[in-house]
Amino acid sequence: MTPFKPRDPDFRASVQRHFSAQGFLALLGVSLERAEPGLAEYRMPFRADLGQQNGVFHGGAIGAVAEAVMGGAAATLVSAGANVMGASYLLNLLSPGRGVSLLARGTVLKPGRRLIVCRADIFVEAADGSQVLCAAGQGTMAVIEPPAGA
Amino acid sequence: MTPFKPRDPDFRASVQRHFSAQGFLALLGVSLERAEPGLAEYRMPFRADLGQQNGVFHGGAIGAVAEAVMGGAAATLVSAGANVMGASYLLNLLSPGRGVSLLARGTVLKPGRRLIVCRADIFVEAADGSQVLCAAGQGTMAVIEPPAGA
Amino acid sequence: MTPFKPRDPDFRASVQRHFSAQGFLALLGVSLERAEPGLAEYRMPFRADLGQQNGVFHGGAIGAVAEAVMGGAAATLVSAGANVMGASYLLNLLSPGRGVSLLARGTVLKPGRRLIVCRADIFVEAADGSQVLCAAGQGTMAVIEPPAGA
Amino acid sequence: MTPFKPRDPDFRASVQRHFSAQGFLALLGVSLERAEPGLAEYRMPFRADLGQQNGVFHGGAIGAVAEAVMGGAAATLVSAGANVMGASYLLNLLSPGRGVSLLARGTVLKPGRRLIVCRADIFVEAADGSQVLCAAGQGTMAVIEPPAGA
Repeated sequence: MTPFKPRDPDFRASVQRHFSAQGFLALLGVSLERAEPGLAEYRMPFRADLGQQNGVFHGGAIGAVAEAVMGGAAATLVSAGANVMGASYLLNLLSPGRGVSLLARGTVLKPGRRLIVCRADIFVEAADGSQVLCAAGQGTMAVIEPPAGA
Repeated sequence: MTPFKPRDPDFRASVQRHFSAQGFLALLGVSLERAEPGLAEYRMPFRADLGQQNGVFHGGAIGAVAEAVMGGAAATLVSAGANVMGASYLLNLLSPGRGVSLLARGTVLKPGRRLIVCRADIFVEAADGSQVLCAAGQGTMAVIEPPAGA
Repeated sequence: MTPFKPRDPDFRASVQRHFSAQGFLALLGVSLERAEPGLAEYRMPFRADLGQQNGVFHGGAIGAVAEAVMGGAAATLVSAGANVMGASYLLNLLSPGRGVSLLARGTVLKPGRRLIVCRADIFVEAADGSQVLCAAGQGTMAVIEPPAGA
Repeated sequence: MTPFKPRDPDFRASVQRHFSAQGFLALLGVSLERAEPGLAEYRMPFRADLGQQNGVFHGGAIGAVAEAVMGGAAATLVSAGANVMGASYLLNLLSPGRGVSLLARGTVLKPGRRLIVCRADIFVEAADGSQVLCAAGQGTMAVIEPPAGA
């Protein structure tokens, strides 16, 4: 499913660094669950302040974790020292995000040198562990190379 | 610019209710600044926990306020008692969101009965009040009518 | 991969009718290759007038077949007599579409009653039959029910 | 509305060349109507083979002209000799495209060195010249610089 070769053999440490540097993900209570070449998974437990009027995950919170996990997937494939920033993303909300947590899976479709195109599949998880696809994303991450000579 | 006639003469109270019911916006520190028929403006002051690794607003936080303000713009045009939920949205990040606050403006392009298509223009504001367009969104909001007989 | 149950047992005939009614697809030389519940495949052979300046498939032609095949996939799951129209779609172009034909595969993510969300994977095919993913789409199709009493 | 300074003083000739090199636009019968710094307008008269089952412009044809006109707008702002290729675009269809022609207007939001983000407003024109907004696009064009030393 992810036949990509990482450029950076230590890509897991890079993804962890990329993840930890994003204060916004700490605010949302997101955890990094998994990183493979071309794939990342993040989880976000439900909290009332991540919700919207009717008690389900807010579409903007779902979109934020979708954007972040696509960045994480892209970060598994860049050179050591390079960074990743979102350039654009589409989110489609498929069903109300009602459950105990979200599992967001980002996968790389095309790892270009400058742009990495990814998809995100967002599942809402019930207390019994069952998962329902509640949102789908597609986006472009820009690769920021470290300054030459750095 | 917004030649739309609201169906609900008390649309400002409806938008305020719609806004206040979203706990996620309180978490982000977003304020409702303006509501006109087919238009809404929200502001989000910078905080470190809304940022990403390099000290600018996180793309996911920008997207969340973009999605929310399009919902606010749509909410100015629905019937009394109807609600609005995001169905899909695209965000393009244009320049690093570095500044003291974001001003997000949502405008309605097409107010359908079931779907309302909107755009969002997101400006980053400097301490001197100058504004730079830092992100642009386009999305579809679904109109949720109250249950018949409610 | 497509665990969807068609509402219309004669869904293949419906998809064929849906396809044949689109004069634009005849102009592009598109053929209907496959229809399963929640899945459709269309093929478009290369012609100079489907190209752009540098001899590859035009991004707009790729997008048109992506939009169409998502409509085809959606059409496999609607009731007899219902129609499908595109509401919105995103296309990401991944690599230059240089080859003898495009194979477009549309798959349904979520078959709602009013909106059907789909993905499209577009492969460019070489003379030896090898395929490379050259574009990826995600979109929403609106279901148009036949008038009551029709 | 378009406070952009073209890098290429002869940008109108460049846009004309960019336009003429796209055989696909000739197939669709599209004409270049206007080019200003950061803005382009294309027109596409209705023909049965640009339509879909119910006699209106096909969503894929609307999307193709939307993508093309954003490329045209971007082409007004690149250096002499550079080219423009679509990277991604979203199209929202707002109302049935029923009329004698489409007028597509592309405008640049952000002219980056490598990526140019644009919007498209697509109007369907009636026989009396009146216009209705029928689709809205937002997309990213990639700038292809000429090979060094060319």
